[in-house]
Amino acid sequence: MTATVVTPPTTDPVRENALPDVYDRVESEVRSYCRNWPATMASARGSWMTDTSGRQYLDFFAGAGALNYGHNNPVLKAPLIDYLSQDSIVHSLDMATAAKTEFLETFERLILRPRSLDYKVQFPGPTGANAVESALKLARKVTGRESIINFTNAFHGMTLGALSVTGNSMKRAGAGIPLVHATPMPYDNYFGGITEDFHWFERVLDDSGGGLNHPAAVIVETVQGEGGLNVARMEWLRALAELCQRRDILLIVDDVQMGCGRTGAFFSFEEAGIVPDIVTLSKSISGYGLPMALTLFRRDLDVWAPGEHNGTFRGHNPAFVTATKALETYWKSATFAENTAAKGQHVRDRLESIAAAHEGISARGRGMAQGLKCEEKDLAAAICATAFERGVLMETSGPSDEVIKLLPPLTTSTEDLDAGLDILAEAVATTVS
Amino acid sequence: MTATVVTPPTTDPVRENALPDVYDRVESEVRSYCRNWPATMASARGSWMTDTSGRQYLDFFAGAGALNYGHNNPVLKAPLIDYLSQDSIVHSLDMATAAKTEFLETFERLILRPRSLDYKVQFPGPTGANAVESALKLARKVTGRESIINFTNAFHGMTLGALSVTGNSMKRAGAGIPLVHATPMPYDNYFGGITEDFHWFERVLDDSGGGLNHPAAVIVETVQGEGGLNVARMEWLRALAELCQRRDILLIVDDVQMGCGRTGAFFSFEEAGIVPDIVTLSKSISGYGLPMALTLFRRDLDVWAPGEHNGTFRGHNPAFVTATKALETYWKSATFAENTAAKGQHVRDRLESIAAAHEGISARGRGMAQGLKCEEKDLAAAICATAFERGVLMETSGPSDEVIKLLPPLTTSTEDLDAGLDILAEAVATTVS
Amino acid sequence: MTATVVTPPTTDPVRENALPDVYDRVESEVRSYCRNWPATMASARGSWMTDTSGRQYLDFFAGAGALNYGHNNPVLKAPLIDYLSQDSIVHSLDMATAAKTEFLETFERLILRPRSLDYKVQFPGPTGANAVESALKLARKVTGRESIINFTNAFHGMTLGALSVTGNSMKRAGAGIPLVHATPMPYDNYFGGITEDFHWFERVLDDSGGGLNHPAAVIVETVQGEGGLNVARMEWLRALAELCQRRDILLIVDDVQMGCGRTGAFFSFEEAGIVPDIVTLSKSISGYGLPMALTLFRRDLDVWAPGEHNGTFRGHNPAFVTATKALETYWKSATFAENTAAKGQHVRDRLESIAAAHEGISARGRGMAQGLKCEEKDLAAAICATAFERGVLMETSGPSDEVIKLLPPLTTSTEDLDAGLDILAEAVATTVS
Amino acid sequence: MTATVVTPPTTDPVRENALPDVYDRVESEVRSYCRNWPATMASARGSWMTDTSGRQYLDFFAGAGALNYGHNNPVLKAPLIDYLSQDSIVHSLDMATAAKTEFLETFERLILRPRSLDYKVQFPGPTGANAVESALKLARKVTGRESIINFTNAFHGMTLGALSVTGNSMKRAGAGIPLVHATPMPYDNYFGGITEDFHWFERVLDDSGGGLNHPAAVIVETVQGEGGLNVARMEWLRALAELCQRRDILLIVDDVQMGCGRTGAFFSFEEAGIVPDIVTLSKSISGYGLPMALTLFRRDLDVWAPGEHNGTFRGHNPAFVTATKALETYWKSATFAENTAAKGQHVRDRLESIAAAHEGISARGRGMAQGLKCEEKDLAAAICATAFERGVLMETSGPSDEVIKLLPPLTTSTEDLDAGLDILAEAVATTVS
Repeated sequence: MTATVVTPPTTDPVRENALPDVYDRVESEVRSYCRNWPATMASARGSWMTDTSGRQYLDFFAGAGALNYGHNNPVLKAPLIDYLSQDSIVHSLDMATAAKTEFLETFERLILRPRSLDYKVQFPGPTGANAVESALKLARKVTGRESIINFTNAFHGMTLGALSVTGNSMKRAGAGIPLVHATPMPYDNYFGGITEDFHWFERVLDDSGGGLNHPAAVIVETVQGEGGLNVARMEWLRALAELCQRRDILLIVDDVQMGCGRTGAFFSFEEAGIVPDIVTLSKSISGYGLPMALTLFRRDLDVWAPGEHNGTFRGHNPAFVTATKALETYWKSATFAENTAAKGQHVRDRLESIAAAHEGISARGRGMAQGLKCEEKDLAAAICATAFERGVLMETSGPSDEVIKLLPPLTTSTEDLDAGLDILAEAVATTVS
Repeated sequence: MTATVVTPPTTDPVRENALPDVYDRVESEVRSYCRNWPATMASARGSWMTDTSGRQYLDFFAGAGALNYGHNNPVLKAPLIDYLSQDSIVHSLDMATAAKTEFLETFERLILRPRSLDYKVQFPGPTGANAVESALKLARKVTGRESIINFTNAFHGMTLGALSVTGNSMKRAGAGIPLVHATPMPYDNYFGGITEDFHWFERVLDDSGGGLNHPAAVIVETVQGEGGLNVARMEWLRALAELCQRRDILLIVDDVQMGCGRTGAFFSFEEAGIVPDIVTLSKSISGYGLPMALTLFRRDLDVWAPGEHNGTFRGHNPAFVTATKALETYWKSATFAENTAAKGQHVRDRLESIAAAHEGISARGRGMAQGLKCEEKDLAAAICATAFERGVLMETSGPSDEVIKLLPPLTTSTEDLDAGLDILAEAVATTVS
Repeated sequence: MTATVVTPPTTDPVRENALPDVYDRVESEVRSYCRNWPATMASARGSWMTDTSGRQYLDFFAGAGALNYGHNNPVLKAPLIDYLSQDSIVHSLDMATAAKTEFLETFERLILRPRSLDYKVQFPGPTGANAVESALKLARKVTGRESIINFTNAFHGMTLGALSVTGNSMKRAGAGIPLVHATPMPYDNYFGGITEDFHWFERVLDDSGGGLNHPAAVIVETVQGEGGLNVARMEWLRALAELCQRRDILLIVDDVQMGCGRTGAFFSFEEAGIVPDIVTLSKSISGYGLPMALTLFRRDLDVWAPGEHNGTFRGHNPAFVTATKALETYWKSATFAENTAAKGQHVRDRLESIAAAHEGISARGRGMAQGLKCEEKDLAAAICATAFERGVLMETSGPSDEVIKLLPPLTTSTEDLDAGLDILAEAVATTVS
Repeated sequence: MTATVVTPPTTDPVRENALPDVYDRVESEVRSYCRNWPATMASARGSWMTDTSGRQYLDFFAGAGALNYGHNNPVLKAPLIDYLSQDSIVHSLDMATAAKTEFLETFERLILRPRSLDYKVQFPGPTGANAVESALKLARKVTGRESIINFTNAFHGMTLGALSVTGNSMKRAGAGIPLVHATPMPYDNYFGGITEDFHWFERVLDDSGGGLNHPAAVIVETVQGEGGLNVARMEWLRALAELCQRRDILLIVDDVQMGCGRTGAFFSFEEAGIVPDIVTLSKSISGYGLPMALTLFRRDLDVWAPGEHNGTFRGHNPAFVTATKALETYWKSATFAENTAAKGQHVRDRLESIAAAHEGISARGRGMAQGLKCEEKDLAAAICATAFERGVLMETSGPSDEVIKLLPPLTTSTEDLDAGLDILAEAVATTVS
């Protein structure tokens, strides 16, 4: 899974990488990543992607967190190809299948039981947004309330329910209708540590004249990836969980991006010692970049009627196969989580060095979700563009795209991490000066 | 793709088929198909599925229309396995990839151009609901209006936007909030032919005192699959398209279930000679049961800002590979569509015979979406249960589950169609008497 | 209360009537009646108003129905001036007062008991919109549902709740937010008698896939005054009441404009023999044009918590005084109602004659709410303008202002009615030719 | 306007004051003040009310601020009775009348011009809620945005639009639908002075990922009467006005309760030196307790179409007559405002003395809106009950009814103020001990 470090291209990279005409001609203007990374990708292995011209890229974005175990991980690939070759079930709605049985048993055995999580599992459809939509619907159905608390700079998806709890104003404007039923509260450290936690939230909840509709649920990310790698402190998460319990509000942790080991442990909330009422998982749950999502919730919240929430692609069995294998491979012991933590620390140390050398740049993140915040406008994007020219895929995040977000596959070797970070360091140095 | 006709099982079918305990213990109560079809499926080919005990089932449901070309179609399977074996790109967000380029070029060449459809293509996420959500968002953004007209017994999906235009009251109740911004109008033939088309809709639109917020769009299925195989007449669809044009309302055809050849032509609206402003596709677009969806719209409606609607699984490349191969295989000539029409007629003739023999049962449908409507309460479900025992998978639909809906793979042989219809005829005869 | 018939002014009427500058300079552009009737009114008695230049007008509008007993009716004026002179209570919130006690006892004795109406009485604030708002709130609170059915061309008021059940598109646009939670249904005779009553409404209610949120209530006017003098047939009202009862939907009759004797009986729904669950009254309830409103509802629906709906001007005692006196004067026997019916018939006969003489003009209305519908665009307004020049105040109504609406005080003498109708006849003849 | 100080009743006060049966039998359970003050009021003069048994009460509530010039003020009564006696216009919709002309000219001359307020005047209907509804509609129409910022413990009225920006949870629950489009922000001093002003509000506005729909307007009371006599500091109001200007948000000051001289100056915001974009007035604007309201707004915001917001009781001419006389009497010079300030200071001094003598009781308020906050649960209500028994009408306010709110007529003599405050002091002493 390693490769020689890429040599910067000698010719104009944009010209070389120009996309086939069909994108301009036929694909909607809504397309975005292909604009920043104007290359046509052909193959990939581990942390490396190769475009149609044979150029290689070190992937520090990992499908926005959907490829925690790398591209085409051979450990998962083998059973996937076996499964398909044998004409096993590919599509099954929510029928029982051998692959689904094995996934459920494995998930129960390796994930739920060892963590004493008495959750039921829903297959809400194959995307994180499906999981969020089902979580919100369930919370509203259980409580009979309609209002949801979300947080500043939250990102939960693009369907109407998920979008209503998302912060980004450009994406919200896309709804075309007023997005209601959600009230934003300040995320941890929103005021730079000056204001006490939940000062405002708890006060307004307490106040019968506060004007806040009593919420069905709070939805929170432990680390806001899209929002700019904002990291909630463990004590803040614990205080939030306690507040929810005291006030009879359900706590939904959206672990779509930060779950499946991104921060170390399987669930990103484990470190805080909290047990959410509802959890959403997607992105890396299949392990192979195949569409799949789960909604988990306390057994007593399982008030769904049969078929009350459904969808055509809830039974994507190839994803169950790779998901099962990923659990067996990486989550039988603590080793993988420990390695992730160690790699994350290494990345952080390197980022701190870069930050130390440049005023207005600071490191941030948790586990293997790390990045650099650039005070200067447009600097983060310029650094990412330079890094792309030098063969590393990195994206910006944050309300003003001010944060360089690194989400390398968790399986990336230290050598590759260092290679990418070297290029990042150069890109920073080049761009800043 | 044929098989010997199944022998009815000799032992108690329910006992034999009892599902593994893990479903009861871990999967949410929301599960549904596995309740009616208590078998654990293991493999499948063409129109046949086989459970873990080796029993075979003739699949007349085809993943609710997601398997128009059958299970594990070998023509699609070969390039899929090749693609995966070569470590080609699996997951790519909306980056350009070789597989995506080929799909876009093929879709343009074989589908859009021959039909003179000047559409842009959006990858809205991998499900039909994603496509519907993006279609509604775009219609609202383009028009600056918020209201949508839907039809009685419409089904468009489970996310909040899609659910708001869906008719089913049980599923709507799952939202937990009042579903607003949509107003239902009567679907074609809702009053048994007594009332003139669009009598009410056009009158209330015309009336500045009508109290109807002027709609951004109308969303319609040409045949309502979930709604009970309600078939809109071609002249009704044409009149609807003309009404929308006259009133400056966008017309969205939701072709998620009826597109991709289910009614004969690639798009179900072709026969009516109309050109919708926006079209949604999903289910069988990948051809292999892999999650994939498209939103198509008139070039001048492409007002999306880059990234204004996004999602993790918009670039599911294995689905692009099978989708491209399916287009090349089945849509280069008119043969496949003609065969579907012929098979559909055959199925319809057989259903008419069954209906003729039983009072209170009538045939309905279009193309290869055919079925039987049973006046007697619970009769349709009882017939489906008997058919399952005899090895055929069929589902009910309609607001009272009063319609037996047949959606066999379009590739089903006439022999298999007849085998299944024989069993259906027996099941009807047995159950009615 | 009679007066000599006015002589048409000899000088330019617009110039003569030009309003003081302060209206242009200081009053909002939202002002409307003063634009059509550019006279500054100074005094009034019975059916006659006099402007500051001494010119007299026969008032066939009666404060949009707020002056059923005429201007400054001396029977009511005497106790009002007595009351005020004695320093009796003017403003009392919802405290008990002698005047309120007397009103409640009188209303119970003369209105509720003789009609066997076991209603509780709420003072919701002094306007019809207050009454409608409280009616909708109560219906939603009682049923736990949010959706309301209104009718095409309904008018219920300008506050957000009332506006959401109002049909007029210009007024709805003034809300500035999407008006939701209400679904319009066709009012009686909306399709010119071709379509069966409640065809669509009942069918969609019955259909669990109809997509209509089950309504808390239906709100209806027995005659739509603002909507164009649309008269519901008695059998339609009865069928509506039965439908509501069968489907467990509350029936709200908005009798703000048609109550208090406008159609003959005190309540406009009496003739139909129905008993609504909730009734709103305002406009003429005080009898003297003083702000006052009532919400009446079945005793068992009185689930309000103390103070759950309040308002500063619920206790406008001078209005209670005149209201009590009006009840004592006009509603102790059937005479007043009978006279109104007779006068209404007389007006109708004269209007039929006018209509018979002019193609494209037809008579419509019920009781003393009568008018002429003019097919030709802008004709109704032109006739009203001519009538104003000749000294009669009449207004247009209907979605295209196509109906001349006559709402003379019920106390107007036959001579004055004829004088006004003569002028109307001349205005029609002059304007049409 | 003075009277002998009342003697505490010698017999059981509740028995004596029991209300007539008709209240229980016929009036809705929603009635409230008559429960706390079980007396039937008969007449009133200045600050004194007399019940049907002849008992006198010192009115320190003044119609919740609707009687700033006292009951039946003889200065206003004379022209009112003259006006009515002469058969002048009582009800005129929004026609021009002599009384309206005079009011508009007087309001312009005595209120707008001296304060350099270039406002247009709208007559939105006769209640504060009508004024608030029209203000919200206009702000949304002008900006094209739907979201409104309100404040914790705000009170703006009971119609749906006004209720959506009101804080009280009991009253909000009465809506029966989710109240949306408004987001509460902390009012001044909500956190006891610990948190910087607008810390949260401005930060979340600035943040494109904050998740707050950009607001059309902020609606604020300078002193929250219903909310518990919360007084905003002048610098907070100025900072709010500046924030609104910087962010292109309209500022609505709801001066329904605190306007018309309650805090000293005619408008309560004058002291802060700010000029709101929109102002609502009602309650004491007529001066005599007659229903009347005004919406004032910057000339360039007058985008209303004629008739876009209307209502039957916009032209309540007797109220215009008393309103004009009140302006002429009290607002020609600064004397009245200065007297109010002095009386307010006197009341405050006495309240501070009472507070100083009792732990857990503190004084609060501004101008002649003053009160005592009682930490102990139910204490405020108990004190008010005792005061009622001793002949003084006072009400509680605040989210837990923890504040005794004094709103005496501004015309109350110092002797009467002292008499009432003596009784309050005794009531406090009696109840606390």
